[in-house]
Amino acid sequence: MFQDQFLNELRLRWKKLQTKMQETSTQGLFISSNVNLYYVSGRVFSGYIYLPAEGDPLFFVRRPVGLSGQGVIYIRKPEEIGTYFQEHGITFPKTLTLETDSISYNEYQRYEAIFQPETVLNGTALLRNARNLKTDWEIEQIRRSGILHTQVYETIPSLYRPGMTDIELSIEIERQSRLAGSLGLFRIFGQSMEIFMGSLLAGENADNPSPYDFAMGGAGQDPSLPVGGNGTPLREGMAVMVDMGGNFTGYTTDMSRVFSIGSLTDLAYRAHECSLAIQDEIERTARPGTPAKELYNIAAGMAAEAGLADYFMGHAQKAGFVGHGIGIEINEGPVLAPRSKDILAENMVFALEPKFVIPGVGAVGIENSFAVQKDGLEKLTLCEEKILILS
Amino acid sequence: MFQDQFLNELRLRWKKLQTKMQETSTQGLFISSNVNLYYVSGRVFSGYIYLPAEGDPLFFVRRPVGLSGQGVIYIRKPEEIGTYFQEHGITFPKTLTLETDSISYNEYQRYEAIFQPETVLNGTALLRNARNLKTDWEIEQIRRSGILHTQVYETIPSLYRPGMTDIELSIEIERQSRLAGSLGLFRIFGQSMEIFMGSLLAGENADNPSPYDFAMGGAGQDPSLPVGGNGTPLREGMAVMVDMGGNFTGYTTDMSRVFSIGSLTDLAYRAHECSLAIQDEIERTARPGTPAKELYNIAAGMAAEAGLADYFMGHAQKAGFVGHGIGIEINEGPVLAPRSKDILAENMVFALEPKFVIPGVGAVGIENSFAVQKDGLEKLTLCEEKILILS
Repeated sequence: MFQDQFLNELRLRWKKLQTKMQETSTQGLFISSNVNLYYVSGRVFSGYIYLPAEGDPLFFVRRPVGLSGQGVIYIRKPEEIGTYFQEHGITFPKTLTLETDSISYNEYQRYEAIFQPETVLNGTALLRNARNLKTDWEIEQIRRSGILHTQVYETIPSLYRPGMTDIELSIEIERQSRLAGSLGLFRIFGQSMEIFMGSLLAGENADNPSPYDFAMGGAGQDPSLPVGGNGTPLREGMAVMVDMGGNFTGYTTDMSRVFSIGSLTDLAYRAHECSLAIQDEIERTARPGTPAKELYNIAAGMAAEAGLADYFMGHAQKAGFVGHGIGIEINEGPVLAPRSKDILAENMVFALEPKFVIPGVGAVGIENSFAVQKDGLEKLTLCEEKILILS
Repeated sequence: MFQDQFLNELRLRWKKLQTKMQETSTQGLFISSNVNLYYVSGRVFSGYIYLPAEGDPLFFVRRPVGLSGQGVIYIRKPEEIGTYFQEHGITFPKTLTLETDSISYNEYQRYEAIFQPETVLNGTALLRNARNLKTDWEIEQIRRSGILHTQVYETIPSLYRPGMTDIELSIEIERQSRLAGSLGLFRIFGQSMEIFMGSLLAGENADNPSPYDFAMGGAGQDPSLPVGGNGTPLREGMAVMVDMGGNFTGYTTDMSRVFSIGSLTDLAYRAHECSLAIQDEIERTARPGTPAKELYNIAAGMAAEAGLADYFMGHAQKAGFVGHGIGIEINEGPVLAPRSKDILAENMVFALEPKFVIPGVGAVGIENSFAVQKDGLEKLTLCEEKILILS
């Protein structure tokens, strides 16, 4: 199932989950989503994990064939798990924790019939809370993604050719990302948000509202996926914001950089400078114990003070946050939003993205990924933050 | 919300759903998944659709800002829908149909509290059944995807360079797909199956089992996404199967073609010929009224008769089907499998993929997309079916 040297890493995660389970008197955590199967076992498989409040997990595998190791049991359907418990004298959990925010209603019915618990608790929340605090190994994965992400962004000026559309430039960045090892697909929590490898927003298209809860919109190419680039020809005076996923490992970084075709308006440059100043101020402020909403308030306050509130985090439609946790999914905790209850803690990792949409110009601003360390923030995505001219 | 000329198309879909609703005495169908929002409204938005058993749907929109038209109501949270019903004297449905295979358990609880129905029926099944029979407009979208998909595949020989890995060749095909208008992201029913733009399987990697219920496996690049290409250097004697998504519209085609580096073993060529013969036989047999399982049986029978049963639809791990419906999602009905209850009907669209994995060589076989017409099958993905040599 997994290599021995990785077992110590996994034991840290199991222990973290079990501590939370004991706090809520849960006897069992039952997992079926790919994201959490990956978190708890170190790989994606088709099947289920049962983690008891004490002891090692059981891995009920449907596919692929050929996995082996302690705790691996092959099944064809989840009902065989009940039989396995009975035959092996395993106690059925009175309180069972299920991924109630991600498993479907019909799956829930099926699992409830297998375990017949007295109480069911929300495992999606438990797992997301646990995952918010990364292990050192996980932070190292994000660091690796950040290094590759940065290398790809450094090639962007060389990929531009006059006459390109936003989509055409995006395609060349996608190709560079894949050549550098991007897995392509990245994971988003919540089934309503969909996007391809990220977005590249040029000019007025940045102000087109999208259905998704992303910081920036874009009309997209098709009504079936109305987000991001829309075929805008890149022209003099446009800001081009590149916000592509950094999933070079199972853990993603998030980073945005702005380029310009020729020069932009003073307002656009001023807003970009304001984003950098917001980032500086948040880097000075943030440390373990800082409320996430305080960081949002710093950003919104500085934007307002600069007279840029109308453009902050969107114009026609605004995003309600200035940053979000990252990890296996692009939208983990903490959330940097006005009513967030999250408090920064050591080993949290988040993306900070103070951005502005300037009508007639496009999106400007910055996004970087940061790990929360004992003394403050470690920036994981290090490349030029000024607006670079494409020519 | 949508253009007037599109309203007639949508009315066909509403009518189809309402006919099914009346058969099960459902008063209301409540929709929240992107796939079905797109099907019923022609675009993805963040929100909900309520379709009554008679009359036009209501569109409860959260995002994007700026939609308008008959039936569009802006809300911030689903609970406001109950208030809207009360204020407008709309009857609450006694029998409510919800997407119980795709909405989460917690969403279900929330919607049930809003509508307080006596009975809840499975809307995922109802919608999937309705979507299995495409409208002419939908088939035209799939035709358009097929034409572009074919154009991309025709460039494959020109993309190959000696010394490439499977991933490197895949990246160049991905780029061509995107340049031809591919949306990149395609949709898969069921949250457990994940893949990037498709798969390219070379040599022995085709025999690596994956966790996903795809026809072919591959080890992938990372334990977080263990499917498809794994960095295999393309070498003399290898079969290279290209199976990339054809999502050039909101509707996808599915097509596979095999290439070789130098020449393959006789067994591999014989298996490829067998795939083509299976396809021919199924094209001769299939018409409205044909049971889908009969088509599976034809394929499995011909593979066995040729002495190729061990390699049919995988070797180390086998897929249990030889074809699947396509449309907004890559895995719709009908399913061509031994125990399928689906019966072909006019305006169904499916991908047929008789394939073999030959140890030491790789995957061979064919996959094309077909629409079921009155007199038989219309092939939607027309390009060379022989194994082409890459050099």
